[in-house]
Amino acid sequence: MSAEPIPDAALAEILASIVFDRDGLVTSVAQQHDTGEILMVAWMNRAAVEATLREGQVVYWSRSRMRLWRKGETSGQTQRLVELQIDCDGDTLLVKVDQTGVACHTGRRSCFFRAVRGGGLETITAIEIDPGDLYGARR
Amino acid sequence: MSAEPIPDAALAEILASIVFDRDGLVTSVAQQHDTGEILMVAWMNRAAVEATLREGQVVYWSRSRMRLWRKGETSGQTQRLVELQIDCDGDTLLVKVDQTGVACHTGRRSCFFRAVRGGGLETITAIEIDPGDLYGARR
Repeated sequence: MSAEPIPDAALAEILASIVFDRDGLVTSVAQQHDTGEILMVAWMNRAAVEATLREGQVVYWSRSRMRLWRKGETSGQTQRLVELQIDCDGDTLLVKVDQTGVACHTGRRSCFFRAVRGGGLETITAIEIDPGDLYGARR
Repeated sequence: MSAEPIPDAALAEILASIVFDRDGLVTSVAQQHDTGEILMVAWMNRAAVEATLREGQVVYWSRSRMRLWRKGETSGQTQRLVELQIDCDGDTLLVKVDQTGVACHTGRRSCFFRAVRGGGLETITAIEIDPGDLYGARR
């Protein structure tokens, strides 16, 4: 799907099915398509959904930078869109992706690296890429 | 973990690590622990997180009903807590669960039953339990 341009009518149908919140955003869960691993949760606005479907690469809305955020634009850790799914009430998207490298800015594969275990909060996954290499000399 | 009572100090540490939004809520993604299937996305407040960790059964905050929502309290489709994870910036939870029956009020296993395919929005999973059986004569 992501390899072919999406027809305008289909895009309009999809955008009409999404219930954006009062800030114009929709919660978007990114899942590695083959392993099922949850990589991250971020937000999209209408323009981000449209760009994601048109470009076949995942684009979010950065709430901190207040602009479109092409995932990996700085770090190179891009997400190729495999499939976009919408939940029953339309207020959450599930984005099946193929993640290049790591999804988390800490250099871990997934942003969910802390778990409640043994009566406390534990770090359960290791850093795979030094964040300095992700955001340092590259630009 | 969910089988044992959580120590008060651990609960305090976990609650302090969560960044609740302006409505006092945190986005919570429920994932079937063994298959990796994303079942639903809902919201928790502090009391819901605490109840989930103390009871070992997932409790959300219902934004429509404005009260705690013990998942399955009406439908019987409960979620046993397997592990609670927190993301890097603390504003999203990943709740690994063992789902009894179906997660979606439409009677489907997952709320994500619509996908962008072939230039349009398609229903990709079937109803497993008649919603009338979930919410009808039971109460």
